[in-house]
Amino acid sequence: MLSIKDLSALYAAKYNGERLGTEPKGLYEPMSHIMSIPGKRIRPLLLLLSCDAFGGQVSDALNAAHAMELFHNFTLVHDDIMDAATLRRGIPTVHELYGINAGILTGDAIFIYVYKYLCMLPPAILPAALELFNATAVEIMEGQQMDMDFEQRLDVAVQEYLTMIGFKTSVLLACSLQMGAIIAGASVHDQSSVYDFGMKLGLSFQIKDDWLDTFGESDKVGKKPGGDIIQNKKTYLLITLLNTISNDDRKELLKLFEEKDETHKVAAVMALYAKYDISAKTLEKADALYQEALDALDAISISTEQKVNLRTMAQMVHDRTF
Amino acid sequence: MLSIKDLSALYAAKYNGERLGTEPKGLYEPMSHIMSIPGKRIRPLLLLLSCDAFGGQVSDALNAAHAMELFHNFTLVHDDIMDAATLRRGIPTVHELYGINAGILTGDAIFIYVYKYLCMLPPAILPAALELFNATAVEIMEGQQMDMDFEQRLDVAVQEYLTMIGFKTSVLLACSLQMGAIIAGASVHDQSSVYDFGMKLGLSFQIKDDWLDTFGESDKVGKKPGGDIIQNKKTYLLITLLNTISNDDRKELLKLFEEKDETHKVAAVMALYAKYDISAKTLEKADALYQEALDALDAISISTEQKVNLRTMAQMVHDRTF
Repeated sequence: MLSIKDLSALYAAKYNGERLGTEPKGLYEPMSHIMSIPGKRIRPLLLLLSCDAFGGQVSDALNAAHAMELFHNFTLVHDDIMDAATLRRGIPTVHELYGINAGILTGDAIFIYVYKYLCMLPPAILPAALELFNATAVEIMEGQQMDMDFEQRLDVAVQEYLTMIGFKTSVLLACSLQMGAIIAGASVHDQSSVYDFGMKLGLSFQIKDDWLDTFGESDKVGKKPGGDIIQNKKTYLLITLLNTISNDDRKELLKLFEEKDETHKVAAVMALYAKYDISAKTLEKADALYQEALDALDAISISTEQKVNLRTMAQMVHDRTF
Repeated sequence: MLSIKDLSALYAAKYNGERLGTEPKGLYEPMSHIMSIPGKRIRPLLLLLSCDAFGGQVSDALNAAHAMELFHNFTLVHDDIMDAATLRRGIPTVHELYGINAGILTGDAIFIYVYKYLCMLPPAILPAALELFNATAVEIMEGQQMDMDFEQRLDVAVQEYLTMIGFKTSVLLACSLQMGAIIAGASVHDQSSVYDFGMKLGLSFQIKDDWLDTFGESDKVGKKPGGDIIQNKKTYLLITLLNTISNDDRKELLKLFEEKDETHKVAAVMALYAKYDISAKTLEKADALYQEALDALDAISISTEQKVNLRTMAQMVHDRTF
């Protein structure tokens, strides 16, 4: 078995700085731009270490791993247009640099390359791999739409929120892990367990992310604390509050949504979070989901030794050390 | 063998009014909107009649035929955003009705369903079908970028223009025809010939389309004559003119690009077209390509009887009676 570092290096050696094409420049330059923005490459790494854990040949999995990273970047390019985001990791977004039309076309073209790379898989496993990926991609689109819909609603149930973040964030992690298992020839039971592991880990990560935005130490989070509160963002915190709050406090909260004094707004919403014990409830949910991820890992039939990279990754994601 | 009418009816019976999904409504309603705009459904029809001509089972080809129509609609949704088009066949475009963000996401989601339908093909032919389709889709993106690039250039060679319209228009027709042949189990030689037939037919169609915008009878063309001239659109006519014009006339033409009096502009550019015999040169090229399409059809190994639908479709596309 290879180390996480080795797997990461194998991927980087093959794909860092890759150019998907050259002409027309107006198409391929923006594609290279987004792919060159440094990232954690967590999806390809999950695919590779899952394949390796299940005893597969990592060399067979590199193209599919790259397909996961390409797909993630396709969603970033189009999401950045939808969110009117000008920067990504401090670097101008594609549409900011090249215009919205180029941004749309760049995303579309990257999406086709996702399938070009997936189709390099051996024919025998191609139908199963594509069925998994197509279902995942549809869910990600549905999750993006749900996210936009939720911004207009005050009655989002906790379960609906979990479905949305599951679609938006977790399914691609889960798909990457299952794809690695498929390539390694793992059993259907193990494929399902490793998918479940990815789902629960992604959900736990996203809920902890919501918590960190409000309760994290700002020097560690790396962004202005309370940003979600200022934007009235429908986080796990806010949705849990909306689902437990008294009628009187609810009226106050709705007024706070309009509050212009940001310092007062953050303090007043945090007072409501304290009154309804939202911080502890949120951490409890994140921890419960993390535990469910570890349970799913336990259900996999490979040896504890073979699971070590998966367990280490889970720990690193949980501790924000990845 | 089935008639063109029967094949068209088979497709309509299975897919007209189809809903790809229901929730979230914000995603699936715009998808239904674009798919419900009436169209000729030429791409699925070409796929079905090619499959039928090569002796394949049309029932095996319906899902792939629908994938071609879905892909065409995906390009329409995103192209309409890029062109800021508010109407398509007199019906509001997706982004006009639902906003640009919904337009981007609608196109993306339709694109995934293209692959969902393609992946319903038998596993044995899936790799070949996907390889053809992926290559085609990349060319269409490259063609779209070339088209945008050409609008900024005055030195486009005729061959570059043919490559661009080949990518933008012809390759999806050619791909549909070859996909039908693949499903029917046609030989590689016949697959290549039927692809070539589609390429040449598409090129001939597009060049004739350019000619009709300027020289067609406006009641038949159904749009304001000279629209391309008014917009300085890089058509086969204008590119041929730019490649043959004297330096003095070129200076006049460049001035005409800035002319605000549309009636004068159209008349003056048409006078240059007359001086350089552009109408005849354009029709000659369209006819030569149509003849090459028929030659490609002749090269196919099936009987003249089996080719009758392909020949009839070519004639109908050529005569604008489809």
